[in-house]
Amino acid sequence: MVHTRTASTETSPREPAGEVLPTRPRRLSEVSRFDREADVVVVGLGGAGASAAIEARRAGASVLVLERGSEGGGSTAQSGGILYFGGGTPIQRACGFDDSVEEMFKYLLAASGPNPDEAKVRAYADGSLEHFAWFVEQGVEFKPTFYAKKTTEPPTDDCLLYSGNEDCWPFNLVARPAPRGHKPKTTGSAGGLIMKRLISSATSLGAEVIEDARAQTLIVDDGGRVVGVVARVLGEPLLVRARRGVILTAGGFIMNPRMIAQHAPKLLDVNIQIGNPGDDGAGILMGVGAGGGTICMGEGFVSMPFYPPSKLVNGIIVNEQGQRFVNEDAYHGRTGDFILRQSGGRAYLVVDNASYGRPISGMQLKAADETIAELEASLGLPSGSLTHTVDFYNEHAKAGVDPLFHKKRDYLAPLVEPPFAAIDLSIDKAVVPGFTMGGLDTLPTGEVLTPDGVVVPGLYAAGRTTAGLPRSAGGYSSGMSIGCATFFGRLAGKTAAQAG
Amino acid sequence: MVHTRTASTETSPREPAGEVLPTRPRRLSEVSRFDREADVVVVGLGGAGASAAIEARRAGASVLVLERGSEGGGSTAQSGGILYFGGGTPIQRACGFDDSVEEMFKYLLAASGPNPDEAKVRAYADGSLEHFAWFVEQGVEFKPTFYAKKTTEPPTDDCLLYSGNEDCWPFNLVARPAPRGHKPKTTGSAGGLIMKRLISSATSLGAEVIEDARAQTLIVDDGGRVVGVVARVLGEPLLVRARRGVILTAGGFIMNPRMIAQHAPKLLDVNIQIGNPGDDGAGILMGVGAGGGTICMGEGFVSMPFYPPSKLVNGIIVNEQGQRFVNEDAYHGRTGDFILRQSGGRAYLVVDNASYGRPISGMQLKAADETIAELEASLGLPSGSLTHTVDFYNEHAKAGVDPLFHKKRDYLAPLVEPPFAAIDLSIDKAVVPGFTMGGLDTLPTGEVLTPDGVVVPGLYAAGRTTAGLPRSAGGYSSGMSIGCATFFGRLAGKTAAQAG
Repeated sequence: MVHTRTASTETSPREPAGEVLPTRPRRLSEVSRFDREADVVVVGLGGAGASAAIEARRAGASVLVLERGSEGGGSTAQSGGILYFGGGTPIQRACGFDDSVEEMFKYLLAASGPNPDEAKVRAYADGSLEHFAWFVEQGVEFKPTFYAKKTTEPPTDDCLLYSGNEDCWPFNLVARPAPRGHKPKTTGSAGGLIMKRLISSATSLGAEVIEDARAQTLIVDDGGRVVGVVARVLGEPLLVRARRGVILTAGGFIMNPRMIAQHAPKLLDVNIQIGNPGDDGAGILMGVGAGGGTICMGEGFVSMPFYPPSKLVNGIIVNEQGQRFVNEDAYHGRTGDFILRQSGGRAYLVVDNASYGRPISGMQLKAADETIAELEASLGLPSGSLTHTVDFYNEHAKAGVDPLFHKKRDYLAPLVEPPFAAIDLSIDKAVVPGFTMGGLDTLPTGEVLTPDGVVVPGLYAAGRTTAGLPRSAGGYSSGMSIGCATFFGRLAGKTAAQAG
Repeated sequence: MVHTRTASTETSPREPAGEVLPTRPRRLSEVSRFDREADVVVVGLGGAGASAAIEARRAGASVLVLERGSEGGGSTAQSGGILYFGGGTPIQRACGFDDSVEEMFKYLLAASGPNPDEAKVRAYADGSLEHFAWFVEQGVEFKPTFYAKKTTEPPTDDCLLYSGNEDCWPFNLVARPAPRGHKPKTTGSAGGLIMKRLISSATSLGAEVIEDARAQTLIVDDGGRVVGVVARVLGEPLLVRARRGVILTAGGFIMNPRMIAQHAPKLLDVNIQIGNPGDDGAGILMGVGAGGGTICMGEGFVSMPFYPPSKLVNGIIVNEQGQRFVNEDAYHGRTGDFILRQSGGRAYLVVDNASYGRPISGMQLKAADETIAELEASLGLPSGSLTHTVDFYNEHAKAGVDPLFHKKRDYLAPLVEPPFAAIDLSIDKAVVPGFTMGGLDTLPTGEVLTPDGVVVPGLYAAGRTTAGLPRSAGGYSSGMSIGCATFFGRLAGKTAAQAG
């Protein structure tokens, strides 16, 4: 007979007695009392949650925010704080860049991968100038200067940068390039500053925040409408009624290894989880429990931040066949995604003395030699492979062209000055930051859809709890996450506040 | 203000009045009568469903099968009918191949990608000899002969073949190669024969089948236990009570374009959907409605069946950079997956006169020329790229080695005899069959798990409705789907029949 006793069945998990599971919503009929009540209840006070709270208050709703941490901020507060704006912002214009809503739309559509959410892309491009003005109104300042070097995040207080693949092949064939990364005016990371302003704005407008409040599951009435949240505050239960709607803005699931393995196994190679401990997927699971569908769960950002210094982009990246496979000036998230696809996850950045610089991210040197042939041997690459690749590259770089991958002329210089070195960009040796992109399926308004495509009454979501606008590692730009979280967070707040 | 009117919100979907949605289970309290009742109710009479019905009957349960079509068979009946068996089957031994349970286990674990289900792999390898014997017992015959040519499916009545990457790099480094594809004794496709035997066996044992019965949603009691199925039979409602459990074996979702776009956008490029019209995801959605979690939804099989004839494997496959990127003797599903990752989805099979043959699948010739340099120009490849690739390949092929991708010696011959030709394997030009691999999360016993990892009482699933053992396009072998569907279908039937 077939073997029925396996490791899994022996430890077959059963319903834990009395435990509150996020995917098991509480029935309204089982709730005897509510401790608190508000028109709109927001779960999570990161970029999406604070923006939702602001707009819900502005629309006249009472707002209660449940924040799991001892203070708000979420992953936005921990980030570089780059925001993706375009269509001709005052900063773009001051720096001499010509951008339009249509060019931004075309770029975002192409960058979203094979299944773009055109309605979200449309809304985001159309609303970008207004969204920029809204940030200024919240007290966030932007300096009208351009940071020209290739970097992950300006170390200065400069604002504007190319934060994605806008001026890189093949995206530069799709839409007229323009830099759209906008960093608020501060030296270094700006995420903390952004969240300080947004939280201050939300509370000034009268949104109430309960900290150390961990949402556990949603409360659902007999008709399937979401009407509240079961939470725990410092060990005590808190039952909260939401008269108009609950907005889930509780982050993604990069901190949940089980969900990563099940849904986005490519992210198992990530060794720096971008996020905060709350990014454990609880928001997504609560939404699923109330009937919400998830989409794009396999998508995620896998980065390979080998630059700055930007002169490293003059090097070439090769796989274990000694072949190039990506334009080295691509955004580091695109490069990371391509490296994942190479055999054994192996890749090396090959530089000469002129293009060498110590990578700020801490990537390690693998080998250094006086000739390319020696370097090829040191790396264990097939004899003749790297030498051909460098010869072919050099011959065309001299003429300022890259017929294989169309790297920009700015970074094309023959690799001829010894010594030659290889920096290890192999997935298991390099610094590999990443985060999840999949989540609840929502309309641009933040309304959550079932797997059948029907709205779940009373339920809204935004930020990384949803599959938002960015849904392709190969097309991601810095600023899309916070830009999207705040933009669609605002829409969710406004929509929930006006719900019947 | 932010634009709130978008294409999506204008057509914002609301709850359709009175419509039965698969993700909206019927509450037991809303059911006034049952039309039928059985210990075990099976949804779908394909390979998994028939196997479940057989074992449930053998374990003494009454069994009712609801089949959506006018006759059973499902996608198994439409398939080539290859079954993945190993560990030293009588056929393997008769043909002189040495295989063991452990080698099979190692191979399957490596082939399952970055998140193998080790418990399922273990159960499948351990149970393989018994599963082979079970098929023989059902009246399925296997001829003890080996088909040595590289093919997608033997056109003869021969049985044994290498149906995956067992003897291909890099899998040949992980486990001792053995052919494990077993085709029942019949000329051409054997899927119909298999299903004839299994259905006959199930009905002989007393399983009752209702045809033209479309399951719409599950019936769930107040404790969350699945206790029945709402179906429609020729337009009339049929309410079926399941005393011990419901087994969902209703196929995958390759026929549901919305689900493909949402979950497995890479399959949007598939132009031959492997499956039957019932593979619309309804089984998965019903499971989700009752609380089941889905995993691996982004995974799918994307094939590039450029062989037979097998001499085409002597050619080389290049991308639009004129570079090779895969060992051409890899399984066609692995090749397809790699082509998807190349820029623009472009790829060409380059052959010389000696290695040319018309592909049986109908792939088209892109160019033919007297020299490789001319072919390079005809294909629009960068000057010098293809010529280098062919020179490098030929130089090593002469010596019987492939230092870049380790293609087997059998297929290594210098490409030197004019004319030279290129067959277009670009994703948008080629024949690209595919199917989905994601689905409900189950234990090896078929018990369905919630996203929290808790068993949904009364609910079982098998086959493509689940994320089974094969969960990596790059590691798939022919025979894994039907092998897995029947194996785990049996376990589900047995487990459900014995449920309390």
